[in-house]
Amino acid sequence: MSVAIEKFQPLFDPNSIAFIGASNDTGKWGFIVLRNLINGGYEGKIFPVNPKEKTIQNIPAYSRIKDIPDVPDLAVIVIPPVAVPKAIEECIAKGIRAGLVITAGFAEVGDEGKALQSDMVEKAKRGGMILVGPNCNGILRPSKKLFPQMPAIFPPDGRISIVSQSGNVATSLSQRGIKTGFGIGCTISSGNEADLHCEDFFDFLSNDPGTDVVISYIEGFRNGRRFFETAKSVTVKKPIIMLKAGGTEAGAQAAMSHTASLAGMDSAFQGACRQCGIIRADNLEDLFNIGMGFIDQPRARGNKVGIITMGGGWGVLAADASARYGLDVAKLSDKTLSALDEILPPWWNPGNPVDMVAGNIEGALMKCLKILFEAPETDCILLLGIIGFIKIRPLPPNLSPETVEQHITRTIDELSEAIDQVKTMARFYQKPVVTATEIPFSVGNMEERIFYQAGRKGFALFRTPDAAARVMSCIVHHSYYMRANRNGDN
Amino acid sequence: MSVAIEKFQPLFDPNSIAFIGASNDTGKWGFIVLRNLINGGYEGKIFPVNPKEKTIQNIPAYSRIKDIPDVPDLAVIVIPPVAVPKAIEECIAKGIRAGLVITAGFAEVGDEGKALQSDMVEKAKRGGMILVGPNCNGILRPSKKLFPQMPAIFPPDGRISIVSQSGNVATSLSQRGIKTGFGIGCTISSGNEADLHCEDFFDFLSNDPGTDVVISYIEGFRNGRRFFETAKSVTVKKPIIMLKAGGTEAGAQAAMSHTASLAGMDSAFQGACRQCGIIRADNLEDLFNIGMGFIDQPRARGNKVGIITMGGGWGVLAADASARYGLDVAKLSDKTLSALDEILPPWWNPGNPVDMVAGNIEGALMKCLKILFEAPETDCILLLGIIGFIKIRPLPPNLSPETVEQHITRTIDELSEAIDQVKTMARFYQKPVVTATEIPFSVGNMEERIFYQAGRKGFALFRTPDAAARVMSCIVHHSYYMRANRNGDN
Repeated sequence: MSVAIEKFQPLFDPNSIAFIGASNDTGKWGFIVLRNLINGGYEGKIFPVNPKEKTIQNIPAYSRIKDIPDVPDLAVIVIPPVAVPKAIEECIAKGIRAGLVITAGFAEVGDEGKALQSDMVEKAKRGGMILVGPNCNGILRPSKKLFPQMPAIFPPDGRISIVSQSGNVATSLSQRGIKTGFGIGCTISSGNEADLHCEDFFDFLSNDPGTDVVISYIEGFRNGRRFFETAKSVTVKKPIIMLKAGGTEAGAQAAMSHTASLAGMDSAFQGACRQCGIIRADNLEDLFNIGMGFIDQPRARGNKVGIITMGGGWGVLAADASARYGLDVAKLSDKTLSALDEILPPWWNPGNPVDMVAGNIEGALMKCLKILFEAPETDCILLLGIIGFIKIRPLPPNLSPETVEQHITRTIDELSEAIDQVKTMARFYQKPVVTATEIPFSVGNMEERIFYQAGRKGFALFRTPDAAARVMSCIVHHSYYMRANRNGDN
Repeated sequence: MSVAIEKFQPLFDPNSIAFIGASNDTGKWGFIVLRNLINGGYEGKIFPVNPKEKTIQNIPAYSRIKDIPDVPDLAVIVIPPVAVPKAIEECIAKGIRAGLVITAGFAEVGDEGKALQSDMVEKAKRGGMILVGPNCNGILRPSKKLFPQMPAIFPPDGRISIVSQSGNVATSLSQRGIKTGFGIGCTISSGNEADLHCEDFFDFLSNDPGTDVVISYIEGFRNGRRFFETAKSVTVKKPIIMLKAGGTEAGAQAAMSHTASLAGMDSAFQGACRQCGIIRADNLEDLFNIGMGFIDQPRARGNKVGIITMGGGWGVLAADASARYGLDVAKLSDKTLSALDEILPPWWNPGNPVDMVAGNIEGALMKCLKILFEAPETDCILLLGIIGFIKIRPLPPNLSPETVEQHITRTIDELSEAIDQVKTMARFYQKPVVTATEIPFSVGNMEERIFYQAGRKGFALFRTPDAAARVMSCIVHHSYYMRANRNGDN
C-alpha cells in the first residue's frame, strides 16, 4: 500500500466510525448526517456518542468516546465548535486516527473561531490525527458505501472524483454524477482545510484505483507552492480539472467571507496551472463535462477533428466551436471522401463536417463513422446525433404504458449496443470520441434514461455541439501536455 | 393591420392550406409534414394535392391545384425540385399568396439547383407570391395551431420566437421551448431564403403581438445592408438575440455547403451587431437562455447586482460571473445590512452576495429578497436557490405513488406562489430578476416539473449561477442600448 493510501485509509475506508454529536432530533445535523451514513449502507460498525441518549436512531449510543468498545478509524464530528478541541483530544486518546469535522463556526466567522481552529489542529497534529474540515458538508465514497454528509445524495459508484472547497458546490457536482449516470468515485468537501488541504486529497485520489479523473472547485490556497508541486505530480497520473472561483475582485471578496480563502491573482494563477498541467473549467457545467470527457478515453495524437453530424446546422456550430477551442477541422482526403460517397446519397456535400443529410439510411452512420476513424487525417472524432444509430420509430398516440416501456427499453438497448461499438472503434483506432445529441421522438422518460445509460457506460454524451467541442479540446490539450511531460506510454 | 402583418397573414394565419405533394406513403416527407399539420390541430381546411390518390390521410385530395374548390392562402410544397417552378405558377393562377417550400435540392447543391431556384423566385415575385425556403423544415405557430413542418414537435404557445437558417437548429430551439415550459410564439426555418430573408421575418415578428423576443440562428446574409437596417428598426421594439455561425473559417466553409450562405468576417459583424442593438449568443443553450431572460422582465436602470444565495460556493461563482460579464456586485449600504441582520442568524457574514447560510429559516429568503429589491443600491437581482422558499421535506422511503404525487404537486404549488411574489416585486421595484437553482430532495419527475412550471410562468430559472449572471448581463446591456436609442418609456 502506498504511503498516501495508507495515510488516508482511516478516512476513506474506515473499519468502524465514531459519531460524535449523534442525535435523535430530526431537525439537527447530528441526526441528518448520521441518517445519511446509515441510509448509505455503510457496512462497518457505527458508534453514536451522545451524553444523554441510550440509543440513537436505533443504534446503541455511548456517553463518552472512551466508552466505545472498539477503536474506530474515523470520528465524524457534529458538535458545537467550542466542544471540538476537547473531542479531538478524546479521539486521540482512544486511538482514532482521522476526523471529519462538519461543524462550522471556525476561521470563517472571525478571531474567536480562528483561535478555536488553531487549537483543534494543533491537538490533532500532536496526536497524529488527520482532519477534514471544519465547515464542510462531508465526504462520500460509493464504492465503500460511505456517506457521512449533510445532503441526502447517494450517487452510484463511478470514476470521477471531486474535491471542493464549497459544500454546496460539492453537492452540485455529486448530483451531476447521479443525473449523468457517470457516478462518483469520491467526493470531498474540504471546508476550511484547517489540517488537510485540497492538494492532500489530490494526492490521495492520484493513488486511488477507483478514480480516473479529479474535478475540483477551489476558492484559494493555504499553501500555493505545495499545491502546485502536488498538482504537478498528480497530473502526470490523472487529469485534474479545476474551477477556480474568486478570480475577480467581487468573487475574491465573496470567497473570503465564505471559506476564509485568500483568492489570488487570476493571471499568475493561470500560468501556474498551465505549467503543472491543470485544466481550467469555465463554470460548474463545464467542470463536470470535462471530467466526463476523460473517462475511458484514449489520448489524441493531434488536434485534427473529424465531425459527423445528423444535421447541417449542428455541423456548422461544431466546426465553429472546434476552431474557436483550438481544434483543426480535418481536411478529408480524396480517399476518405470516395469511401463516404459510396454510402451517402448523391446530394451530400462532400467535406468535413460529414453531414448525413436528413433521412439517414439505416446503418449508414456507423459506416461513415468508421471511415472517419480509419482516416489517417483525423486524430479525434465529434459525433453529433447518436439517434442516427437506430431506426427512428415515432410512436402512434394512446399506447399502453407497457408498450411505451417496451419501446423505450428497446431503443436504449439498441443505442447501448451502438455505444459499445463506437467505444470499441475509439480504442482500436486510438482516437478519442465525444458526442452530442438530441433525442427526437422521446416518450416518457426516454431521453433522461438514454443520457443516463450512456453515462453508466462512461460515454461522454452532451446536449450541444459546443459542449462536445469544448470537451474534446481539453482532451487534446491534455494529450499534448502528457506527451511533453511523461515518457513511456502513448 | 400593419403592412408587415398583412403581408404575412397568408403565411402565418392562413384561412386554408393547399398541400402540394401530399402522400399516403408513411416514409415520405409529403406524408410526415401533412400528418404533423393535421396532428397539430390546424382548424382551417386542408386541400391535399396528388395526381394519383382520391384521399390522402383520409382527406379528399385533388389532382391539380386548379381543382381546389377554394382559394387557399398558403401552399405547402413538398415535391421534387424540378416540379416546383411550375407548381408556383399554378398557385399564382389559383390566387394563392404564400408558399412554404420545404423541398431541398436548390442553390445548396450546385448550378442546376441555383438555376431552378432563380426560376422559382422570379415566377413568385412576378405573381406577387411570397415564399419561405426552399430547403427548410417548415414553420410552427402554436397560437394558430399551425404546424406544417418536418419534425413532429408541438410546443405550447409562448412568447419567444425563432428565426433559423438551419432546420435542425430550429428544431433544437423549438424543443427547448417545450422542455423549459416557455413555449414558442413562432418558429421559422428560413432555409435558402430564396425570396423571404431572415430580416423579413424579424420585421413580421416585431409587429406580432404574440412575440416578445426574437432568437435567431444565422449562417450568413443575402443582403447585409438590408439585414442590419431592418434589425435596427426591430431592436427598439423587441430584443433580437443571435447565434451567428460561420464566424471561423472552418465554420464558414461548413455553412457554405449547408445553406449556400456567405458567412462574413466576425469582427466587422460584431461591430454591426452592436450598432443595431443585436445581442449575440455564444452557443445554442446561451441563445435560448437569453431569450428566456427577456420574457416579462422590467428593464434595468444600471448594472449593480444584488445577489442572494442559499449556498456560499454558488454565491462566489455568481459574483465572479457577474464581474466577468460586466455587472457590478453592489456594495450594500449599512441600512440594507442592518435590515438583513434582523432576519439572518448571528453567524451570517454581512455582504453581497447575501449568503443565507445552510439552514434557511422559513420565510427568511423572501424577506431578505425584498430588502435587496428595496435597496436603492441595487439595479437587478440574482436569486440562487428558489427551493429556499419552501420548507424542505425530504420524503421517507417506500411511499405510495399517490403520496409522492401529492408531495410533488404541493411543492410545485408552493414554489409557484413564491414565483408570483418574486415577479410582483420585480415589477413593483422595476428591477429584473434572474434565478438559478438546484432541486435537492427531488423525487420522481419533480425537478423537471418545477423547471417546466417556472417556464410556463415566464420565469427565467437556470441550473447554474453562471448562466443566470450571463443572462442578467444581456438584460442590463440591452437596457443601456434602449435608453440610448429610444425616447419615451422607461
